[in-house]
Amino acid sequence: MCGIVGVTGSNRSVEILINGLKSLEYRGYDSAGIYVNDQNGHDYLVKRQGRIANLENALTDDVQGLAGIGHTRWATHGQPSETNSHPHYSNDKRFYLVHNGVIENYDQLKRDYLSEVDLNSQTDTEVIVQLVAYFVKENQMSTKAAFLKVLRLISSDSSYAFVLMDREEPEMLYVAKNKSPLLIGLADGYNMVGSDAISMLKETNQFMEIEDHELVMVTPDNIQLEDFDGQEHHRDSFTVDMDANAADKGAYPYYMLKEVDEQPAVMRRIVSEYFDQAGNPSVDEAILAEMAKADHIYIIGAGTSYHAGLVGARLLEKYAHIPTSVNISSEFAYDRPLLSQKPFFIFLSQSGETADSRQVLVDVNEHQWPSLTLTNVDKSTLSREATFTMLLYAGPEIAVASTKAYTAQIAVEAVLAKALGMYLADDQAQAFDLRAQLGAVANGMQAITDSKEDLEAIAARFLSKPRNAFYIGRGLDWTVSIEAALKLKEISYVQAEGFASGELKHGTIALIEEGTPVIGIITQDRTAGLTRSNLEETQARGANAITIVARHLAQDNDTIVIPDVDADLTPLLSVVPAQLLAYYTSLGKGLDVDKPRNLAKSVTVM
Amino acid sequence: MCGIVGVTGSNRSVEILINGLKSLEYRGYDSAGIYVNDQNGHDYLVKRQGRIANLENALTDDVQGLAGIGHTRWATHGQPSETNSHPHYSNDKRFYLVHNGVIENYDQLKRDYLSEVDLNSQTDTEVIVQLVAYFVKENQMSTKAAFLKVLRLISSDSSYAFVLMDREEPEMLYVAKNKSPLLIGLADGYNMVGSDAISMLKETNQFMEIEDHELVMVTPDNIQLEDFDGQEHHRDSFTVDMDANAADKGAYPYYMLKEVDEQPAVMRRIVSEYFDQAGNPSVDEAILAEMAKADHIYIIGAGTSYHAGLVGARLLEKYAHIPTSVNISSEFAYDRPLLSQKPFFIFLSQSGETADSRQVLVDVNEHQWPSLTLTNVDKSTLSREATFTMLLYAGPEIAVASTKAYTAQIAVEAVLAKALGMYLADDQAQAFDLRAQLGAVANGMQAITDSKEDLEAIAARFLSKPRNAFYIGRGLDWTVSIEAALKLKEISYVQAEGFASGELKHGTIALIEEGTPVIGIITQDRTAGLTRSNLEETQARGANAITIVARHLAQDNDTIVIPDVDADLTPLLSVVPAQLLAYYTSLGKGLDVDKPRNLAKSVTVM
Repeated sequence: MCGIVGVTGSNRSVEILINGLKSLEYRGYDSAGIYVNDQNGHDYLVKRQGRIANLENALTDDVQGLAGIGHTRWATHGQPSETNSHPHYSNDKRFYLVHNGVIENYDQLKRDYLSEVDLNSQTDTEVIVQLVAYFVKENQMSTKAAFLKVLRLISSDSSYAFVLMDREEPEMLYVAKNKSPLLIGLADGYNMVGSDAISMLKETNQFMEIEDHELVMVTPDNIQLEDFDGQEHHRDSFTVDMDANAADKGAYPYYMLKEVDEQPAVMRRIVSEYFDQAGNPSVDEAILAEMAKADHIYIIGAGTSYHAGLVGARLLEKYAHIPTSVNISSEFAYDRPLLSQKPFFIFLSQSGETADSRQVLVDVNEHQWPSLTLTNVDKSTLSREATFTMLLYAGPEIAVASTKAYTAQIAVEAVLAKALGMYLADDQAQAFDLRAQLGAVANGMQAITDSKEDLEAIAARFLSKPRNAFYIGRGLDWTVSIEAALKLKEISYVQAEGFASGELKHGTIALIEEGTPVIGIITQDRTAGLTRSNLEETQARGANAITIVARHLAQDNDTIVIPDVDADLTPLLSVVPAQLLAYYTSLGKGLDVDKPRNLAKSVTVM
Repeated sequence: MCGIVGVTGSNRSVEILINGLKSLEYRGYDSAGIYVNDQNGHDYLVKRQGRIANLENALTDDVQGLAGIGHTRWATHGQPSETNSHPHYSNDKRFYLVHNGVIENYDQLKRDYLSEVDLNSQTDTEVIVQLVAYFVKENQMSTKAAFLKVLRLISSDSSYAFVLMDREEPEMLYVAKNKSPLLIGLADGYNMVGSDAISMLKETNQFMEIEDHELVMVTPDNIQLEDFDGQEHHRDSFTVDMDANAADKGAYPYYMLKEVDEQPAVMRRIVSEYFDQAGNPSVDEAILAEMAKADHIYIIGAGTSYHAGLVGARLLEKYAHIPTSVNISSEFAYDRPLLSQKPFFIFLSQSGETADSRQVLVDVNEHQWPSLTLTNVDKSTLSREATFTMLLYAGPEIAVASTKAYTAQIAVEAVLAKALGMYLADDQAQAFDLRAQLGAVANGMQAITDSKEDLEAIAARFLSKPRNAFYIGRGLDWTVSIEAALKLKEISYVQAEGFASGELKHGTIALIEEGTPVIGIITQDRTAGLTRSNLEETQARGANAITIVARHLAQDNDTIVIPDVDADLTPLLSVVPAQLLAYYTSLGKGLDVDKPRNLAKSVTVM
C-alpha cells in the first residue's frame, strides 16, 4: 500500500515528485524516497523514515534532475526503516525501482537466481531490481528484455505497480502494473506516472490508462505501450475534471474536521446531482433496468464502505424488494458464497482503488455479471471496470478516517433504492420524499456540527482515559455502532467495539468494568426500549452510559439528542456525533488526527 | 437472566433449594437468596451478594422449612446488592416473590398504583409483589385474584417466570411464566418448580411443562393449571433421561477444562448417534424432505452458536447447494431481512432457552415456516416449539464459556449437510466420508488437549500481560477467529477481537503496538499466504505474531501446529488451542474460569 510518482523531461522534477508524494501521503507514510538523474552524469538517491516532510528537509540544493521516481511507503514486508524504503537499487547502482504491491513469490525468486547476491533489505522490491541487474549482466540482455523476463517470472497472484529507471538511459521510465493502480499523466513537454490522478493534477489534467500486463516506456515526448509479447497497444488519453485546490484544508487544523463539516454541503450536492426539478430521482435507466432483472443484490465493500453497505441493503430491500446481502470484499474474494441465479453487484469504494474489491470485480467480470460502482473518484479502477458507475460527489477525502464518503455512500444508496423502487412501481418508494428528507438531513448535520463544544466536552469527560469503549444499538443503530467504533479505534487508539446490543450479553459484557464508556445509539421506535435495557445492564456493572438519541425518543438524562428524520436515514445523523467524539478524543490525546499510525487511506494491497 | 427454584412438602426444603440454586448458578451469580416457611408460624428470608456459597455460609441451623423459594440473580435493573436481590417481599412481609425476566412497564405500574408505597429496592420485581399486596389489601381480593390481576396488567412485551408465596397459605406456590423458562418437577410426596430440569434432577426425573400465560398452583400433592380466565388445563408429565452426575466436574479444577477434554468423546458420540453401520448418516427423513423444498436456509443463533452457524452455512452451501445465511437472533427478531419464497430455519442453542432465538421462533411459527433446532437439551423450549430437533449429545455444559457445544454444533451441522446432500443426490456429499473424518477429528482433538503444557506456556508468555489481542484468519479461519476472540474476552477479560484478516488494515491495525498479540489461524490452502502476509504487516508494527496452523501448511517458526483433517472441518480442531489459550490466560490471572464476571450461561433475557 504505497504511493508512486515518476516524471521525465522537466527540470522541476524534484518539485514535481515531492508535490506528488505529498498528495499520495494518504496511501501510507512509514518512509519516503526519491531518485533523480540530471542526465549530466549525476544522480541522487535520498530516503528518509517517516513523513514526506522529513524527506523534503533532507534535500540539499544540488539534488536536481530531469527525470526521477518517488515513493511513499506503507510497510508490508519488513519494518519501516530507511534500508527497507524505496527506491530500491541494484548492487551496481545502475537500476532504481519503486513498487506498490506484493510479490508473492519473491522468496522463491531469490532462492532461484540471487543466492550469490548480497541483498541490502528484506523487501520483495529489492529482489525485483536485483533480478533485472542479474539478467542484464549474466544473460547480456537489454534492460527492456531483462525487465520483461522478470515480469514473466512474477507469480500471477502477485500485485505490482513498477517504475524502473536505468542510469544508462536516464530519460526513460519503464512502467508496468498488475492489480495495483497506476496512471500516465501527459504534460506539456514532459510526462508523468502516478498512483492516482490527484498526484499529477497540479501539472496536468490529461491522463492515459495502463492495463494489467502491459509494459509502458515513458520518455519526455512519447508513450509506448506493449503487451509482454511485444505487440504494440494504442490508447486515447482522457481528461479529469477535478479541482486540485479542493484538497486543501484551508483554515481547518485537520482535514477530518473539514470533511465532517462538509457533510451538509455534500448532501445538498447529491440532491442537486441526483434529483430533477420535480423532485424525482434521476438515475441512468440502464442501471435500473439491469438491477430490476436481478434476484439478489450483492454489496461488496471493506471497512467503512462495508458499513455503508449495511445501511444500503436495508434501503434496497425495503423499496426495491430485492434480497440484498453485504459482503466483506476480502472474504468474498476467496470464499464466494453460493450465488443466486441472477446476481447484481454493487461495489462501494471511496477511492475506487480498493484492491480486495477489485479482486472481486475481476471475478465478477469474468462471469459477465452486471455491476455498479459507487465511488468518489471518476475513472478510478473500480469505476472503469464495472458496468456502471454512480459518483458520490463528496469531493476529495484526505483524512484517513472516512466521514463524508460514508454519509455520501448512504445518501447515494438511498437515491438508488428510491429510483429502483419507483422503476418497479413500488408505492412506498413513490411516496418516499427523499429529496426533502436529504434536505432535512443536511440541516440536521449542520445542527450537530454546530454543537462541537458539547461533543468536545463529552469526549474529554468520558473517552480520554479509558482503554476501551463500546457502541451498541440494534438494526440500523447497530450498523452505525460498528462504524462509530471504527472511527474511535482508528484515530484515538481506544479499543472500541460496535455491538448489536442484544449480542453484548453473549460474552463481551465480561469486559465492562467501572468507568467503561458504553455509547447507546437509539433512533428506532421498535428497539429503543430494548437498547435502553441493555445499556442499564452495563450500568449495573459500572459502565458510564452515553446516549445518542433521536429527538422524539429522548428522555431527561440523554447525553446527545439529534434531530428527527426519516427512520431509515437516521444513520446519516447518528454517525456525525460519533465522528466528532472520535475527532476530539484523538485531538485531546495529541495524536495526528488525519494520519493515524499504521494506516493508509486507500488500501491497495490485499 | 436468573435462576429460580421452589419446593413444597419436604422438610429438606432448604437443602433442595440450595442444591437447585447451585446447579442454576450458570444463569447468573450476582446475588442469591431463599425464603422458607416452616408452617409452624416461622419463616426465614436470607439473601447475600455474590455466589451461592456466600448464601450457604449465612444459613444457621434454625433456618428450616417445609416449603420455600430460591433465586440466583444476574442484574438487569439496579446494581447487584443485597437490597436488590430476590426474593422480594411486600412491606407487610406477607408476600414473597422470585422472578426471572424483565417487566417492561414496571415504572408505569409503580406510578399508577404504588405512589403511596415506599419501595425498598430499584427492581421491577419488587413492584410486582408490592402490587399483589396492594390489591389484596385495597380491593379485598384473594391472593389468587390479586396475582391474576397483576399478571394481566403486565405489558405483553415483558418476560417473566414467577413463583409467589403467601405467608397465610404456606403450602402453596403460585407460579406463572411468559417467555422465560419454568418447569414443574414431580417428586415423591413433594413438588418442585425450577428454571430447568437439571436444577431438580437430584430429586426427580418427572416433569411437567408450563405454558405462557398459565397460572399454576403447586401444593405438595397437586398441580393445578389454569389460563387467566380460570379455564383448567390438563397435561401429562414427561421423563427426562439425564444423569445428574454428568454435571459433576470430578477431578478437574474447572468445568471448562473438563468440557474441553470431553470433546473427542463428544465427536465419537455424535458418530455413534448419527451414523449407521454402513457409514451412512441417519437423519430423520422428514427433516431432509422439508429442507429439500427450501430455497434458502436461515440459521439463527447468538454468541457462540452464531459462530457455529457460520461454519454450518458453508457446509450446507457446499453439499446441499441451498443458499444459507447466518443471523444474529437479537437482530433478526426486530429487523427481519427480506425472506425468500420458501425459507427453512435452523435454530442453534446449547440450552435451547435463548430468549432472543425463541422470539424469532415465535414469529417463524406464526408464519408456519418449517424449523429445526440443534440443541443440547431435549424438551427445552426451542426444541419443543420447533418443527424438528436434532440433539448435540454433548452432555451438560456448565462452564459459562461454551466449548464442547460449539464443536458439537459444527459436527451435527456437518452430519446434516452430508445427509441433505445425499438426499439431493449430490456426488460430493456422497463421497464425503464424514464418519471417518469425525474419527480423525476426535484423534486430533486428543492430540491437542494432550499438549496442554505447551499451550499454558504460550498463554503465559504472550497473553498474560497485554490489554488487547487479535485473532485473524480468512474464510473458515475467520469464523474460528471470532469464536476464539470471544473465549479470550469472556473468561480472561483481554479485549480480543476476531478479524477477517483482510479487513484488519481498514482501520483496526491502528491499535497494534509493541507486543500486541496477533494470533493467525491458517488452515486453508487458498488463503494461507494472504493471512501470513497480513500477520507480517502487524509484525512490521511491533505485534507478537502467534500462529495456529494445519500441519501441511506449517513452516519452521509456527507456534501451534494442529493435525490435518478435511479442509471444511478444520474449525473443529483450530478452536481447541484457542479454548485452552483462553483457559490458561484466565487461570494465570487467578480468575474464576467457569464463572466470569457479568455473564450468565444461558441468556434468557432479551
